[in-house]
Amino acid sequence: MAAGGGARAVVPSTPLLKDELDIVIPTIRNLDFLEMWRPFFQPYHLIIVQDGDPSRKIHVPEGFDYELYNRNDINRILGPKASCISFKDSACRCFGYMVSKKKYIYTIDDDCFVAKDPSGKEINALEQHVKNLLCPSTPHFFNTLYDPYREGADFVRGYPFSMREGAPTAVSHGLWLNIPDYDAPTQLVKPLERNTRYVDAVLTIPKGTLFPMCGMNLAFDRELIGPAMYFGLMGDGQPIGRYDDMWAGWCIKVICDHMGWGVKTGLPYIWHSKASNPFVNLKKEYNGIYWQEELIPFFQSAVIPKDCATVQQCYVELSKQVRAKLGKVDPYFTKLADAMVTWIEAWNELNPPSAK
Amino acid sequence: MAAGGGARAVVPSTPLLKDELDIVIPTIRNLDFLEMWRPFFQPYHLIIVQDGDPSRKIHVPEGFDYELYNRNDINRILGPKASCISFKDSACRCFGYMVSKKKYIYTIDDDCFVAKDPSGKEINALEQHVKNLLCPSTPHFFNTLYDPYREGADFVRGYPFSMREGAPTAVSHGLWLNIPDYDAPTQLVKPLERNTRYVDAVLTIPKGTLFPMCGMNLAFDRELIGPAMYFGLMGDGQPIGRYDDMWAGWCIKVICDHMGWGVKTGLPYIWHSKASNPFVNLKKEYNGIYWQEELIPFFQSAVIPKDCATVQQCYVELSKQVRAKLGKVDPYFTKLADAMVTWIEAWNELNPPSAK
Repeated sequence: MAAGGGARAVVPSTPLLKDELDIVIPTIRNLDFLEMWRPFFQPYHLIIVQDGDPSRKIHVPEGFDYELYNRNDINRILGPKASCISFKDSACRCFGYMVSKKKYIYTIDDDCFVAKDPSGKEINALEQHVKNLLCPSTPHFFNTLYDPYREGADFVRGYPFSMREGAPTAVSHGLWLNIPDYDAPTQLVKPLERNTRYVDAVLTIPKGTLFPMCGMNLAFDRELIGPAMYFGLMGDGQPIGRYDDMWAGWCIKVICDHMGWGVKTGLPYIWHSKASNPFVNLKKEYNGIYWQEELIPFFQSAVIPKDCATVQQCYVELSKQVRAKLGKVDPYFTKLADAMVTWIEAWNELNPPSAK
Repeated sequence: MAAGGGARAVVPSTPLLKDELDIVIPTIRNLDFLEMWRPFFQPYHLIIVQDGDPSRKIHVPEGFDYELYNRNDINRILGPKASCISFKDSACRCFGYMVSKKKYIYTIDDDCFVAKDPSGKEINALEQHVKNLLCPSTPHFFNTLYDPYREGADFVRGYPFSMREGAPTAVSHGLWLNIPDYDAPTQLVKPLERNTRYVDAVLTIPKGTLFPMCGMNLAFDRELIGPAMYFGLMGDGQPIGRYDDMWAGWCIKVICDHMGWGVKTGLPYIWHSKASNPFVNLKKEYNGIYWQEELIPFFQSAVIPKDCATVQQCYVELSKQVRAKLGKVDPYFTKLADAMVTWIEAWNELNPPSAK
């Protein structure tokens, strides 16, 4: 019986996965922020999803390997199914997940910069995400010394040995120094609050526990959970915005719990530079703030039937429950349930099973 | 609607609770370790539970306010019910919880010293525990920026507003720098591993999630959860040792979940100086290592009936389930179920409801 985390370590010290990971960036402007990320991102392929006016030309710094999709491209590629991809909201980023052919995705906002650790060293966020994804998770029992697979750590006394192999990690949720990811009311009440605390930990969110997943600094195993990483209907023509990542987070957590996969949160940090306008955010969020009071109990009690063996099956099942139970809350959720099905159809079209 | 953690802050900057907290220390030797804790512990009353030979004289440094109980005292006070208090195992500490008349308990091992934070400042562990206990917990939804009530932190976007008042905190589980709390197999495999990582976080263990509770550096609200903080039958005459705190941790977590109370883990750290002998530990633990594979599923699926409204009722109910389901695993658990009932009887005798 292997007792030590050291004995289990499977992660190379500098995992690159150059040919297995795409970076997805939603944007409406020139991508000058990439200059700061050059040492870390340049080896990777970028998928840029241009939101808003497709005639606008987005500048990408020299030397990056990228493909760019604007609204016209999305409409051309998906045809009528393009209706499931949001417009004028960073939710459009999920189109990038769909067209990628790689095993892993890292997605980042264009107002996120390289953060420094307490020693002053620049943090390679991508490298930490890859470590998180390549290491198992521990969703079935809590380890008080945090990630037991990390060097210098292990499972503590009382942790069942049969659970020490852990579970595959599907999602790695990174955090933010400087501007915290607050909702509009909290932004309004605490306009000057900054996150200055570097918490040196990665932990698995336990099975059965929901969390607020932020899309600003997020990585996932596309082959495992990609089909559930749908960011919903937000922005233009919709009664809600800024809940795209939250919606995806609740869906993927319920499905990861069903499939026996882990979701991690904690390291790595990025430097979030610019708080969005709280007055604009309030307008986008107010329905979400109201509806989430119904959505959380819905997802907390959602059960995926045992015979759902693929993420696609789980997701279509979830869409049925959304229609049946949330349709009463607002007609928007019936439209969203339709879009969830359209998303899966589009996903399967672009990612036929035979291609694997 | 109060949106900010700042608006909710209820914790004075130096909470003392001098007249509301007892420090419980199980020991078999002179308490020289208290010298280092003098600046932090001297204002408090100590309850020393002397394990082993009662004729041995334990030296307590000058100036501390304490009461000391040895085995003869326990036998005299509890009479035949003293059978529920372990002998030759630090599980005997729970006798101190029973004889205390205070609202809060802090318990610490006598090989635990004052740790330093990354800035080199000595950590007042007790002060942090009191902060943890006086602040609400968040067991029903995960906050990615950890304790939302801490200065400089709050609830992140997507956290339901209706849940932001939190839940009463029943338990504060602190961690250890230097010697980590490993089981004997891990100690044997990694004899030189030391915990050097200071994780600057306190978090609530979500509802429905079990954790390995270590009794080395632990505080709790005795008025809330005291009657469930029973450390079981361990050591002399028992087929198991070093699972006293684990047993208590599984029981209190199931009951806190039922009652809607929170359990926190993380800060504060103490400096754990001496690893116990792994060969001796292996002998004490081997049954526990084997049995915990059955115990964890048992506690994960344990449900307390809705009509159990007091901790005493919950605990007696749990003892019935232990008898019915774990009695088959080993006759030891039938004996333990009896002891659980005896413990509650003794607790009620020493803490009659009218005294509150």
